[in-house]
Amino acid sequence: MTRPQTPLLDTVSSPADLKRFSDSELRQLADELRTETISAVSETGGHLGAGLGVVELTVALHHIFDAPRDKIIWDVSHQCYPHKILTGRRDRIRTIRQEGGLSGFTKRSESPYDPFGAAHSSTSISAALGFAAARDLGGASETGHGDAIAVIGDGAMSAGMAFEAMNHAGHLKKRLIVILNDNEMSIAPPVGALSSYLSRLYAGEPFQEFKAAAKGAVSLLPEPFQMGAKRAKEVLKGMAVGGTLFEQLGFSYLGPIDGHDMDQLLPVLRTVRARASGPILIHMITKKGKGYAPAESRRDGGHATAKFDVTTGEQKKSPSNAPSYTKVFAEALLKHAAEDDRICGVTAAMPDGTGLDLLEKRYPSRCFDVGIAEQHAVTFSAGLAAGGMRPFCAIYSTFLQRGFDQVVHDVAIQRLPVRFAIDRAGLVGADGATHAGSFDVAYLSNLPGFTVMAAADEAELVHMVSTAAAHDSGPIAFRYPRGEGEGVTMPERGEVLEIGKGRMIREGARVAILSFGTRLGEVMKACEGLGARGITPTVADARFSKPLDTDLIDRLVADHEALITIEEGAIGGFGSHVAQHLAEQGVFDKGFRFRSMVLPDSFIDQASPAAMYAVAGLDAAQIEAKVLDVLGVGQIAGKRA
Amino acid sequence: MTRPQTPLLDTVSSPADLKRFSDSELRQLADELRTETISAVSETGGHLGAGLGVVELTVALHHIFDAPRDKIIWDVSHQCYPHKILTGRRDRIRTIRQEGGLSGFTKRSESPYDPFGAAHSSTSISAALGFAAARDLGGASETGHGDAIAVIGDGAMSAGMAFEAMNHAGHLKKRLIVILNDNEMSIAPPVGALSSYLSRLYAGEPFQEFKAAAKGAVSLLPEPFQMGAKRAKEVLKGMAVGGTLFEQLGFSYLGPIDGHDMDQLLPVLRTVRARASGPILIHMITKKGKGYAPAESRRDGGHATAKFDVTTGEQKKSPSNAPSYTKVFAEALLKHAAEDDRICGVTAAMPDGTGLDLLEKRYPSRCFDVGIAEQHAVTFSAGLAAGGMRPFCAIYSTFLQRGFDQVVHDVAIQRLPVRFAIDRAGLVGADGATHAGSFDVAYLSNLPGFTVMAAADEAELVHMVSTAAAHDSGPIAFRYPRGEGEGVTMPERGEVLEIGKGRMIREGARVAILSFGTRLGEVMKACEGLGARGITPTVADARFSKPLDTDLIDRLVADHEALITIEEGAIGGFGSHVAQHLAEQGVFDKGFRFRSMVLPDSFIDQASPAAMYAVAGLDAAQIEAKVLDVLGVGQIAGKRA
Repeated sequence: MTRPQTPLLDTVSSPADLKRFSDSELRQLADELRTETISAVSETGGHLGAGLGVVELTVALHHIFDAPRDKIIWDVSHQCYPHKILTGRRDRIRTIRQEGGLSGFTKRSESPYDPFGAAHSSTSISAALGFAAARDLGGASETGHGDAIAVIGDGAMSAGMAFEAMNHAGHLKKRLIVILNDNEMSIAPPVGALSSYLSRLYAGEPFQEFKAAAKGAVSLLPEPFQMGAKRAKEVLKGMAVGGTLFEQLGFSYLGPIDGHDMDQLLPVLRTVRARASGPILIHMITKKGKGYAPAESRRDGGHATAKFDVTTGEQKKSPSNAPSYTKVFAEALLKHAAEDDRICGVTAAMPDGTGLDLLEKRYPSRCFDVGIAEQHAVTFSAGLAAGGMRPFCAIYSTFLQRGFDQVVHDVAIQRLPVRFAIDRAGLVGADGATHAGSFDVAYLSNLPGFTVMAAADEAELVHMVSTAAAHDSGPIAFRYPRGEGEGVTMPERGEVLEIGKGRMIREGARVAILSFGTRLGEVMKACEGLGARGITPTVADARFSKPLDTDLIDRLVADHEALITIEEGAIGGFGSHVAQHLAEQGVFDKGFRFRSMVLPDSFIDQASPAAMYAVAGLDAAQIEAKVLDVLGVGQIAGKRA
Repeated sequence: MTRPQTPLLDTVSSPADLKRFSDSELRQLADELRTETISAVSETGGHLGAGLGVVELTVALHHIFDAPRDKIIWDVSHQCYPHKILTGRRDRIRTIRQEGGLSGFTKRSESPYDPFGAAHSSTSISAALGFAAARDLGGASETGHGDAIAVIGDGAMSAGMAFEAMNHAGHLKKRLIVILNDNEMSIAPPVGALSSYLSRLYAGEPFQEFKAAAKGAVSLLPEPFQMGAKRAKEVLKGMAVGGTLFEQLGFSYLGPIDGHDMDQLLPVLRTVRARASGPILIHMITKKGKGYAPAESRRDGGHATAKFDVTTGEQKKSPSNAPSYTKVFAEALLKHAAEDDRICGVTAAMPDGTGLDLLEKRYPSRCFDVGIAEQHAVTFSAGLAAGGMRPFCAIYSTFLQRGFDQVVHDVAIQRLPVRFAIDRAGLVGADGATHAGSFDVAYLSNLPGFTVMAAADEAELVHMVSTAAAHDSGPIAFRYPRGEGEGVTMPERGEVLEIGKGRMIREGARVAILSFGTRLGEVMKACEGLGARGITPTVADARFSKPLDTDLIDRLVADHEALITIEEGAIGGFGSHVAQHLAEQGVFDKGFRFRSMVLPDSFIDQASPAAMYAVAGLDAAQIEAKVLDVLGVGQIAGKRA
């Protein structure tokens, strides 16, 4: 693969090397950094558009500020690839998101230049304010304490958490720098009143002259500016004028400035560094995917991409064998929506990721994209349900954690029939530990009145959509993994499953495996291996972790020596509920072999999902080993005599 | 007890009865409603100040709007007592918060006039917007669909969730009425930039003249107004002017008005009802505790109270036998803070409730009240920890649910040493199901790298504060219940416990009870009863649900026929972790009797904590029965042959 020429970048091994560059060299460095970023992502795939949008900012920040003493916190950190290249990780940048390679996000354990990891949106201001408070209290930091800088997108700013942090920062009045990277989109086009408010701030005149100078503001200016001083003066004039939403929250507001124009970025950042006191927000306008036409032209600004050809932008995707679970969900939902106008959808800024874009296109009035706002998404869904609608609230497992209290307080306690479509359940691959959907089975299955399902394959998912659509007596959730289905035959129409009933997959002897979710495929593989040793396990698909199919469980216990449960979730979920049932029934009293295979007690770094499940101990080989172990066959049996 | 004279109120059995009243009768009704509320709460105890602040609003809303067709949603609903009195529940108002009585909050199952229950803060706008959307989509509601009205306090408005809802409402542009009840406090004095912003809106001139009229706004005015029309005109002039934070979010802004002045409330609400389109925010200034001097004069506006003497305001509290867990925590923390200036505290608008007010008074710079903002509280604490401080993030169990994603993503994955002080763990009494701390053990104990403790008594709590203070290697949490301690001897100084080690309480035979938390007292009581039958259980206190004391567990298993775990939490927590360990060790294979006593699969209504634990099956009698059952003594043994 031809690598771009990057003579200046080649001389940079840490941010210290940027200090000596002139402004024009910095401009060149930014260009080189952009081509290097494009080249790297073309080889690995990953998040592209966000990084390209902040190339100039990354260079300017590392030139003007002193990381790691100054804490630069990238919100969500999709945009951190250029930052990683400049902070000593260029040699590994082509391992990003690969097994054993760099994380696709900032990560404290990876580099001192990553003072705070991020991957879920809208945490950066809270974290930066924590650093600022620790600094002012004399907290001990190995890298020292300087400025705390949060770089946050306009989409992320719509999350309540960002507002909470702004509200607190405006109250504390500590020196804190927030850079609002406004690219008019997060992943999907932005929604919300805040977004249209931001647009109005520069509507008509993108980089308009600022308001009349507040008295004395100009005197804040440091001298000399090499260039752009006039521009900086104009910008600064905005500082004390008042009237914007951010100023009402106690921030000085500065901008908007063109985030791709070094002549604006450098003097503004220099001035802020030299003279800022209290919290300040710099409003910067950028273009996601900037400088790479194939990314710029995409609706999502080239948010995430497979490996691609740099010249054409064409992505190199392996052909898929089966539709994705996301698509199966979306199409099944669409069929129900066509027949039932009470069906509606709610997404928190992920219409494409959840597949709700299909619903949005066909029935726009019945699809609600609430922005990055999972808390509101859940309670808004509860309100829709209380108002007689049949809402499907589609949120990834890991992001539903943001709405957990609302699930408990607004949905479960009130028994409102909100349907939770939980995508990206279990381990998710390249996004790694921060995006793992490990906890939903545990945190939903102990909520009274909840119904919790997991699809074993894409046909099951279709049934579960139908089951959820028909379920008006309380909350119901169904989970399914990232990626392609198993390639099974699809039903013409979803079937309404009997609540709390599993299904028998194959009748065998001695040991029964009760699977919850898509580990079923690995279970069947394990059975092949076991068959060669004369062991033919019974296999059943639980379908429900709540309510439990106690009839099925009791039958499996009665007819076998041992029962093994398996699920793509942490302890506390399906297996724990089965164990509780067995204990209460006195099953253990008589000597019954039970094992529960769950995710291990560790966060698992990125790799392919299959590799991650191998690390987790949940693949066919390890299921086979568990069966042999529990039966005391060909392995050292029970560790306890 | 002398009841107040309430001739007008006596004629009201439902809101329909308010329709016929003249404005001056409504004023009298408000006065009567106020005295009735004071009288009722003096007999039952409960939330007083918030209700007194909205007496006029409650009367005005029920006169002008048509509940239950119009959906009135009281945020947090501490203020719902006058609403309950007017909506057919006056005959039961003196049962409020009692076992079998009315809930202290709005509750869907209690009345059609409670369209959406609330008890955690800041959910009302999301829910109201859900009703508005359902209405516009033709959702079927048994009570019909009219206006959706959220009444929310200024404190609750600081929560991110409220911002998310405002942002979405401004985007959707549906007719929606939000009444901001600004009493300059929620429970504690308000914090945050939003709060000072609100103050500035009426600083100097509490009910100032409004800005110059926007063209056409006056033409919105309905005729005739009986009175106050001039005022309403002035108020309405503010509607289209722009410039406030709320208008920037797409709301029409109306106010501020005096929420105790019927001459302002009635015409404004009439106008809004007749003419509002899109989302509108009415900014109303009130006084918490209004009209009852003993409440008004208290710092918290008489937020919550025991039974009291109406004349003097003196509360009738039973003398306490032991200090509250909250106070024990607060004093232990203070000692550490005196010796270690890295210790700091974070509370989400509950300095009094969590006891952090002591720290705030002594070391104000090291105590952060972030407002009602649990998400930010957790990640801000993570930032403090990353910056070298030793933060104690003190949040009630039920409210920590709001910060769950931040606990996972910002604290656990980064292994940051945030100390979580989890008050009100387990069942909490009069606040009922919405405030139960049922889930924290489950949702924290499956997080890799977390340490989770529960105090068995107040001396243990002191040790756990010391243990947490010393624990720099990762996140640590300790939970303790609402209310008084057990009256045990207090240690001079907290001791740093060995991580993951329990303690033996008494050696016995045949059955071992492993307790996690304050059920230990009931366990000891059960042992007394069992002793009379010749059964002397071994009792141990696990102290840690994570990491498990597997040595202790293995010893208990080796030396006994049966093991029973008990905890004040839902399934998926301590007992599930023990079960998983036993299963993996092959303990069940050989026939070992194990039971796990956890909270049942139901939400438990308010009563005394003791009565709630009896309902939950976790009192001494039921522990005794469980022991007899597992040993097959004096009861029908194991249900399964």
